[in-house]
Amino acid sequence: MSQPTLSFEQLRHSAPLALRQYIAAGQYQGHTSGLAQGRVQANIVILPNDWANEFLRYCTLNRQACPVLDVTEPGDPYFRNLGTAIDIRHEVSRYRVYRHGELSEEPSDIEHVWQDDLVAFAIGCSFSFEQPLLDAGIALRHIDLGRNVAMYRTNIDTRPTARLSGKLVVSMRPMQAAAAIQAIQITARMPNVHGAPVHIGDPALIGIDSLSSPDYGDAVPVEADEIPVFWACGVTPQSVVQTSRPPLCITHAPGCMLVTDVLNSAL
Amino acid sequence: MSQPTLSFEQLRHSAPLALRQYIAAGQYQGHTSGLAQGRVQANIVILPNDWANEFLRYCTLNRQACPVLDVTEPGDPYFRNLGTAIDIRHEVSRYRVYRHGELSEEPSDIEHVWQDDLVAFAIGCSFSFEQPLLDAGIALRHIDLGRNVAMYRTNIDTRPTARLSGKLVVSMRPMQAAAAIQAIQITARMPNVHGAPVHIGDPALIGIDSLSSPDYGDAVPVEADEIPVFWACGVTPQSVVQTSRPPLCITHAPGCMLVTDVLNSAL
Repeated sequence: MSQPTLSFEQLRHSAPLALRQYIAAGQYQGHTSGLAQGRVQANIVILPNDWANEFLRYCTLNRQACPVLDVTEPGDPYFRNLGTAIDIRHEVSRYRVYRHGELSEEPSDIEHVWQDDLVAFAIGCSFSFEQPLLDAGIALRHIDLGRNVAMYRTNIDTRPTARLSGKLVVSMRPMQAAAAIQAIQITARMPNVHGAPVHIGDPALIGIDSLSSPDYGDAVPVEADEIPVFWACGVTPQSVVQTSRPPLCITHAPGCMLVTDVLNSAL
Repeated sequence: MSQPTLSFEQLRHSAPLALRQYIAAGQYQGHTSGLAQGRVQANIVILPNDWANEFLRYCTLNRQACPVLDVTEPGDPYFRNLGTAIDIRHEVSRYRVYRHGELSEEPSDIEHVWQDDLVAFAIGCSFSFEQPLLDAGIALRHIDLGRNVAMYRTNIDTRPTARLSGKLVVSMRPMQAAAAIQAIQITARMPNVHGAPVHIGDPALIGIDSLSSPDYGDAVPVEADEIPVFWACGVTPQSVVQTSRPPLCITHAPGCMLVTDVLNSAL
């Protein structure tokens, strides 16, 4: 490639459009945590029209886990409501392509799998509420430890549609009581990124046997004076869709979110 | 009919399920303002599947005007997420049936027009945020005057889909500054019923020529020491759908909302 490679520090402070152009040019295929700081990052789900229509009903009924920030018209590869039009075929650093529920490839571009009946969804992500928590002086242990957040499958049923159903997946952040109370208030103001927690305290009450064995992400320790705080998680819709095995489903690869032009503060 | 007719005062204090059964039995065909107090009332839009899929995308992109509280599976006449299953063919007091955009009938039951491809939407309504405003001691002039709220077509474009587009419709309530500030805070907490206002002050800035000539509802006077406060209005999706002339569209008749089991405080 002819262009010089940008440093991670340069990517952190780059404008979101410039970052997406860099990604679309094939210059960066890594994770997006901390990049283009202050901008909304989104989970991506792409489905054929028939499944997409049902998936949008599912998201509507399960908004806390699946807050849809933008949806495309069938066959239109552009998100048109997240700032400058975003070509979803090129502007995510790494994708996952599932066929009948099985991972078939992990490309850095999906032009070759694009179809005229595909609909793309951008779904809110907890990156957007972690920054306001940090800004309020609330430490987030998984960040301090350089780990992914711990996520668990609960025994809470989501609201089903004909073919889409499953248990709610939550992310957990341990906090002292005062921080938990503050975090509830801050996140309650952000319904587009999961809103207030769904549970605090005893994990067994929502069907989680052991905090040390998360279903997704990395375990983080909970200290004796801390309460685990559980938020609805954007992994829920991806897990539900994959279980139902649509003929084709494309998502972002873990950690490789779509970086939008929207300011976190606008959510 | 064999049952005795209930008084308006009895209907005000009836349980929502009992009220809907009374309506389904053909005993009441009037408006629902103030009935089954404290319960969420919803706007209804029913469309054939093809149009319904696009309408749900439109609502997702224009959530402040079109907060979807529940959506049915195609052909299923039951709302399943608003309390006890609600049969949308019978449990609204009066409907409007539009064919190709023209009002064709105003029945009190839609069993005879039901089709296997219909999808029903329940959309949040400002009745749900007016009660918390009243509870906070904020007077609402249209209620004091026994009028419908004043609604206006603005020059604000909604986010379009392929066939659905149009201007935002807003409702206006005049308030003194202190009440307006309080009302902004209270409604901001209720994103499922239009959320915070979209505008305060000069109506010309959003394309409203004259407050005394509302496009829908009744005019109410704005006093010299008051500010007009404008909220996104659930008339927006109905107006947009009717303009696009789908072959069949069924809505509630004005003021004849669906009374759900959901508590206003749960929004």
